[in-house]
Amino acid sequence: MPTPPRSGREQAIARLLSPRSIAIAGASADFSKINGRPLKHLLDKGFAGRLLPVNPKYRDIAGVACHASIDALPEAPDLAVVAVPAREVPACIEALGRRGARAAVVFSSGFGETGDAGRELEQRTLALARAAGLVLCGPNCLGFVNAFDKVWATFSQYADGPPAEGPVAFVTQSGAFGTAIAALARARGLGLGYFVNTGNEADLEFSEVMSAVVEDPRVRVAAGYLEGLRDGVALVRLARRCHALGKPLVLTKVGRRAAGARAAASHTGALAVEDAVFDAVIRQYGVLRARNEEQMIDMLEALSGERRARGNGLGIVTQSGGAGVMMADRAEEVGLAVPVLSAATQARIARVMPAFGAAGNPVDVTGQFLATPELLSESVVALLDDPAIDAGIVWLQLMAAHAQRLVRLFVEIRGRTSKPFVVCWVAAPSDAVSALRESGIPVFPAGERAVEAVAALADFERSTRLRFEPGDGERARIDGGSATESGASNGSGASNGSGASTAPGASAGRGHARAASLEGLVPTVDAVAMLAAAGVPMAPVVLARDEDAAVTAWRGFGGPVALKIESPDLTHKTDVGGVALGIDGESAVRGAYRALVRGVGQAAPAARIAGVIVQPMACGAVELVVGARRDPAFGVVVMVGLGGVLVEALRDVAFGHAPFSPDEAARMLGRLRAGALLDGVRGRPGTDRAVLARLLSRVSHWAAAMSPVLEELDLNPVLAGPDGVIGVDCVMILTKGT
Amino acid sequence: MPTPPRSGREQAIARLLSPRSIAIAGASADFSKINGRPLKHLLDKGFAGRLLPVNPKYRDIAGVACHASIDALPEAPDLAVVAVPAREVPACIEALGRRGARAAVVFSSGFGETGDAGRELEQRTLALARAAGLVLCGPNCLGFVNAFDKVWATFSQYADGPPAEGPVAFVTQSGAFGTAIAALARARGLGLGYFVNTGNEADLEFSEVMSAVVEDPRVRVAAGYLEGLRDGVALVRLARRCHALGKPLVLTKVGRRAAGARAAASHTGALAVEDAVFDAVIRQYGVLRARNEEQMIDMLEALSGERRARGNGLGIVTQSGGAGVMMADRAEEVGLAVPVLSAATQARIARVMPAFGAAGNPVDVTGQFLATPELLSESVVALLDDPAIDAGIVWLQLMAAHAQRLVRLFVEIRGRTSKPFVVCWVAAPSDAVSALRESGIPVFPAGERAVEAVAALADFERSTRLRFEPGDGERARIDGGSATESGASNGSGASNGSGASTAPGASAGRGHARAASLEGLVPTVDAVAMLAAAGVPMAPVVLARDEDAAVTAWRGFGGPVALKIESPDLTHKTDVGGVALGIDGESAVRGAYRALVRGVGQAAPAARIAGVIVQPMACGAVELVVGARRDPAFGVVVMVGLGGVLVEALRDVAFGHAPFSPDEAARMLGRLRAGALLDGVRGRPGTDRAVLARLLSRVSHWAAAMSPVLEELDLNPVLAGPDGVIGVDCVMILTKGT
Repeated sequence: MPTPPRSGREQAIARLLSPRSIAIAGASADFSKINGRPLKHLLDKGFAGRLLPVNPKYRDIAGVACHASIDALPEAPDLAVVAVPAREVPACIEALGRRGARAAVVFSSGFGETGDAGRELEQRTLALARAAGLVLCGPNCLGFVNAFDKVWATFSQYADGPPAEGPVAFVTQSGAFGTAIAALARARGLGLGYFVNTGNEADLEFSEVMSAVVEDPRVRVAAGYLEGLRDGVALVRLARRCHALGKPLVLTKVGRRAAGARAAASHTGALAVEDAVFDAVIRQYGVLRARNEEQMIDMLEALSGERRARGNGLGIVTQSGGAGVMMADRAEEVGLAVPVLSAATQARIARVMPAFGAAGNPVDVTGQFLATPELLSESVVALLDDPAIDAGIVWLQLMAAHAQRLVRLFVEIRGRTSKPFVVCWVAAPSDAVSALRESGIPVFPAGERAVEAVAALADFERSTRLRFEPGDGERARIDGGSATESGASNGSGASNGSGASTAPGASAGRGHARAASLEGLVPTVDAVAMLAAAGVPMAPVVLARDEDAAVTAWRGFGGPVALKIESPDLTHKTDVGGVALGIDGESAVRGAYRALVRGVGQAAPAARIAGVIVQPMACGAVELVVGARRDPAFGVVVMVGLGGVLVEALRDVAFGHAPFSPDEAARMLGRLRAGALLDGVRGRPGTDRAVLARLLSRVSHWAAAMSPVLEELDLNPVLAGPDGVIGVDCVMILTKGT
Repeated sequence: MPTPPRSGREQAIARLLSPRSIAIAGASADFSKINGRPLKHLLDKGFAGRLLPVNPKYRDIAGVACHASIDALPEAPDLAVVAVPAREVPACIEALGRRGARAAVVFSSGFGETGDAGRELEQRTLALARAAGLVLCGPNCLGFVNAFDKVWATFSQYADGPPAEGPVAFVTQSGAFGTAIAALARARGLGLGYFVNTGNEADLEFSEVMSAVVEDPRVRVAAGYLEGLRDGVALVRLARRCHALGKPLVLTKVGRRAAGARAAASHTGALAVEDAVFDAVIRQYGVLRARNEEQMIDMLEALSGERRARGNGLGIVTQSGGAGVMMADRAEEVGLAVPVLSAATQARIARVMPAFGAAGNPVDVTGQFLATPELLSESVVALLDDPAIDAGIVWLQLMAAHAQRLVRLFVEIRGRTSKPFVVCWVAAPSDAVSALRESGIPVFPAGERAVEAVAALADFERSTRLRFEPGDGERARIDGGSATESGASNGSGASNGSGASTAPGASAGRGHARAASLEGLVPTVDAVAMLAAAGVPMAPVVLARDEDAAVTAWRGFGGPVALKIESPDLTHKTDVGGVALGIDGESAVRGAYRALVRGVGQAAPAARIAGVIVQPMACGAVELVVGARRDPAFGVVVMVGLGGVLVEALRDVAFGHAPFSPDEAARMLGRLRAGALLDGVRGRPGTDRAVLARLLSRVSHWAAAMSPVLEELDLNPVLAGPDGVIGVDCVMILTKGT
């Protein structure tokens, strides 16, 4: 995986994180103060570069020469720590620019987080930094730690503890919560190679910082804590990069629900992102989501180990049948399998444990293993040797008197196996826990948490097999028509409607060109033509401008038709009585035409009427809605839901970031709670998920190509049945473009 | 709340738990062995009663006189600990019976848990105990602890630690997992007054033991760990008793899903109970369910405090905005409100914290409170003084250098308030945690866990306001017809169908009498008559034995009718073409009659045909299914679900233990995931939940009264709309009774 070439900004960020020299503007000799602590930590932790405290009050601090002003610095610092009052920050940034600094981390608070005046000050500071070519971390942040290179440019309480360098890179928007998470990680024996607090993110945002640190070959796992998200596209780019590097990215984001959103709105200026969209998009790109800080640490403990699970088969060895049941339950809930062991494995376990039950996973070794230690070791090794097992959990409790023996036993087991296994030790002696962790064996204090951690291993393994569509940076290439749909091998000749044979890439390009002259609510015939050309099966439409034309269209379709009023002013035709269904026969068509025009004229007298859309009646076993819209954070997002009252009663919808493959579309369908309806229930026919997935993927490709001008697309209903899938009604709204 | 009079068995159980003398059959002088440990623990912990070890090998053990045999004991012991090999247990039990013992706890394993031979041995032991009038705890158990009275009749590792007496009674089916939970409780400073392991439950089951200990006035909170359930009725009785005593009952039960059920089946002989039913029934009676051992301990820590929440309003004070968002989110998910503070409270907080935001809950005191401690204390006190707030959480992290100051501050706050508040202290200094707990302030290590614990306080408060229908023990009184439906004040004259004015108690009595002569599939007219008499609105039915009768019935109903084949051999009429809908007009009725009889004659030639049911067509906005069946653990359980494809795609059903009130029925409806459909979506009409709830309650009363003979009742569909609720089709199956 070659490292992409670095921009100047990227080089400045890399320098910020690994500086050879650090200026500290406003440095204090009182090491208990915010502006005193960074120098203390840098000295204590042995930073090997040059330290340049700046304060006219001192000639030196703790033996380090102190400079009277930034202008008086003997060299241009790679990094400047800014720890002066908020009102002095702009001048400080200007001075740093003059002196040739390229990066600053601003501790000072009193900016955007305090209201309008602070926001103005923050904008001014940012403008000065930009003008001076300075990259800014903060303001209102605790700074950062690069433990690998002993850069402790922070006043966080975390720095009070031992270095704890390790393969985890942790970037957090929150200082206080981030410090707590970092402390939890250290208490669990997890080393943080990087710990960065981005604070108000006036300039450097979470994704940009993480994108920089994840390139460090010493980093194996990336973890982030988010409170808001401005640039979803950058997050997607980061996720794709982590995927390419084969490094797991674990995110915790608060603000899932209304109460939290209210709290978030009052807490942070960051744009609220709809959590369902956020969740769908990050999972689409293989990000692992931790629901809270405890789960994050649990996942990190499993993921920072050297062993990876090759599948989702979980083997459980337990000393308590009930704990085994609880873990097996949780495993099923989080997507792990608890396979029945092979006959050979069962026989092997039965040799050491005559009372061993038949199914044998979980394996309950009871308390007997204390008398016969090989009961435990042989069972665990046999279990892990089983081809259906990809990872193991061993559950036990207390055993203070046997802690050392058990640790030796687990180390022996580890040596005899190559698959990952973790220990769940409830109410464990703390020295045993430390000893196991030092031997590279993850330890968890509760069974369900151990299962969730192993699920993270399996989820990560699954994510490495994801293949993404070309992303934002690569979109232009698609428009040239050279890309082919990754899912085209699913059999594109299946029972689609019109236009199914057109390559979506090429068609999207044409669609875009055509749309350039369109704005607002796109006429139905044009919208349908564009989608059909993009390979989206659509029910054919004719715009009849008079009764005769409607009759001709009805004759042409050769059966019952739907008539729908066409007006650039009406997006909800049913509400104004603008739809007539199942019309057959000349006089019926004429009557319906007149009734529609008359009725809509009365219900919406201001609406311009372009005519009536005539469309053959379509039918399907399942009604869906498919939509595309521009998400403020992520760009174009496609939504699919089960239509009718169901979607309203359940809000049963799934999201995907455009463009996506039919494989990803199939995963979206798999997330619908009432998705069983797609396969037919109660003797009703189902639909072909692959055909439906292809429609979704094509909509996503078209919508992504249209993103400069796409405001909204709604296909409602999309009818799906055993004979194929077809979009029936369509509302497409375009803007002038940007 | 008067204590109910005790049966002889109840007295023996009370004596078992608080013995004046304890014999130890098979006592060993080796205190590391299972049969040596109980005497050690009883001596160490200072049991004040008489100790009577039995073993012909010793004259005394550790200075306590040892007896050669049970027969040679100087007195009849209140309790006998049996720690002899399994094969010797039956003789031991016989001897204990001869010597006049009334209770034994059997440690020995090698019984039901090992297979058929063990099961036989267990049954023989039980029979001998019953014959001798002995109550049995175990076998295959770790024994029990009554810490209040220093009875440590156990070999559990838990006994190796300090006494930790306290207000929690913990009863567990699992020994190993139970010991782990007990150890976790002690590590959290939670004292267990009782810790009982029921093991194989040959005789004494979980509910009976818990029913005994919960009567102890020193017990304030009851907690149980379950792996299976034989006697659900006893569990319901226990829950009702805890409710009457005002003591919370917290249960963890494993075996939620298929994988777990498989593991459970191989682990325990206890009957698998459907988890959805278990969950619904225990919540109906106010039991709090903890999903795992960590959550159980968290809930116990909150509930064992002296302060109770009066409502579900949560106030949050935090040092991290993001943590506040996370907790507010979780609060909403678990049924807590995070109310906006009153103007007065906001003004009060703003006086100490000028930068305080407007909405103000969560209150973010940032890190400033270290410089200005009153920022924290005044904020928390003001928040708790707000009338909308019932409980508080204060979130902070680390602060090792300020731990003592903060503890003093929290103790001061506690003194100034009467509402419960808990501290969430992430990565806390351990001495601060201990100090807070000793001051009666619960402490949690993670924000979501603190929220869940406070939710338990609110859930418990809500449960105290539950009012139950007369239970099993009181059922007989209803049958006399004197009871009135507790929800009758809801307006029984509302838009019900026929028979709504009949008192359900009286009608159930009649129904039962009438059903005595019925068995198998009850004829539709009889089933409908019974239900209608019980106040369940049912569409009227006529059984037509020939065409002419069908025509007469159609005339009588005065509109379109449904015709349905009537046969004692057919429960699924649609499957054999036995249903014709919307039939109107004499010739149509005759034609449909003939077609039904002919069609069913061909599809199911063996079925006896009694005629055709004629029924006026009914309609409703929402289709439901309502059923009643005899659950193997709990007795009669009523189910309601949203009908049609929805129930099949979503399994969206709710359960209630019969009989239940309309209030409980309304809560069941509230648990339906697609319950929004009941209120009408997309302009469709909804239904009156109160009328539907009354129907459910009446079905439950009828079904409970019929429980000796009820096999199955299915009302499918029940149609609900703005004009009322009506049961349309009905399958009722009765048995001979027991």
